[in-house]
Amino acid sequence: MMKLRSSPPSPFGRKIKIAMAILGLKDRIEIEDANTADPSDSLRSQNPLGKIPALILENGDVLYDSAVILEYLDFLAGGGKLFPAGEARFAVLRNQTLADGIMEAAILRVYEKRFKEPKYRDPAWDAYQGAKMARGLAYFEENVPKMPSSADDIDAGTLTLACMLGYLDIRFGNDNWRDGHPKLAAWLEAFEAAVPAFATTKIPPAPVPDNDPALLQ
Amino acid sequence: MMKLRSSPPSPFGRKIKIAMAILGLKDRIEIEDANTADPSDSLRSQNPLGKIPALILENGDVLYDSAVILEYLDFLAGGGKLFPAGEARFAVLRNQTLADGIMEAAILRVYEKRFKEPKYRDPAWDAYQGAKMARGLAYFEENVPKMPSSADDIDAGTLTLACMLGYLDIRFGNDNWRDGHPKLAAWLEAFEAAVPAFATTKIPPAPVPDNDPALLQ
Repeated sequence: MMKLRSSPPSPFGRKIKIAMAILGLKDRIEIEDANTADPSDSLRSQNPLGKIPALILENGDVLYDSAVILEYLDFLAGGGKLFPAGEARFAVLRNQTLADGIMEAAILRVYEKRFKEPKYRDPAWDAYQGAKMARGLAYFEENVPKMPSSADDIDAGTLTLACMLGYLDIRFGNDNWRDGHPKLAAWLEAFEAAVPAFATTKIPPAPVPDNDPALLQ
Repeated sequence: MMKLRSSPPSPFGRKIKIAMAILGLKDRIEIEDANTADPSDSLRSQNPLGKIPALILENGDVLYDSAVILEYLDFLAGGGKLFPAGEARFAVLRNQTLADGIMEAAILRVYEKRFKEPKYRDPAWDAYQGAKMARGLAYFEENVPKMPSSADDIDAGTLTLACMLGYLDIRFGNDNWRDGHPKLAAWLEAFEAAVPAFATTKIPPAPVPDNDPALLQ
């Protein structure tokens, strides 16, 4: 049995959980929550970066980050499902990187509030990361993927896009990303209808916990 | 002609430049420096995340990040050179992610000094990122790759490892990473002897420019 270290709010972990469902691998991987803020959690010995998700293989080897795990699951499922072959592969990888990068900018902003005392929070840094998110969303609105009608239409790029938008709903609900991005909003509705595991991995909006610098250790 | 947007100190860009040399692709890609801190640089329209490296293809499509570009160059060169096939692929990808992650933690620390006024620099955040770097280096010291004797022995993981260590020499020279990591130090010497492009892409140690918040826009 393989083991996935993750946590329910993680958009990167959500990618993996949805892929497990799509690829028929749920019975081969148990999920064990990890606390990235707890130095005594075994996560940091499993992934020196202390990040989730991490996948512990049966031989003890560990794979991370989410892009690597996703590709490994695709490989276990026979290949070519979430990652097309040939030249088409690279636009999918680029879309995955862009959506992952928007999530990373979002998480850096969350960390400012969650881990830092107010005096250390730099509004210019927050705006700088926010601008990356805005440009990324504008790109996807202009280059919205085709509407998926079933899980067969999903790839690593669109799966990551959906989880990124879902993360905005969890942590940045007040920003109402759907305003100004109507094509993306319609696309996410179609994604949710086509991929039942998106709904089953959804968690309610959870405002960022404020200012617990004790967690930064 | 393809175009690579990068800058000399970027360890992620250095990976690509070395791969271009190893894979015989230098004649197909021109290099154009990018200034990530300049909002008027076309980089942000090429990569909404505003990050380097970005590879502009002949049809205008853009690929990023460095892992995606590296794999694309490997594909152009016939495949299987920097990324092995089958199960062996995933340890290489994981090593690449770990070395990339150490670089990302290092760059977050650099940004604190380069972009933020002193009052916004949180020592706990710096220590938190530093601990990720220390755990990652300890992992590689315990799992040091085999000594390369030619560029045929290089893969995406070891290429990234070498560029990460090189970045520590540029930006974190005072930390003397070789102390406490003798196997990695010997390994990097062997890498440099085996891969001439590592030396030709080297830049001198450059202390982080201090405190220019005007750059954070």
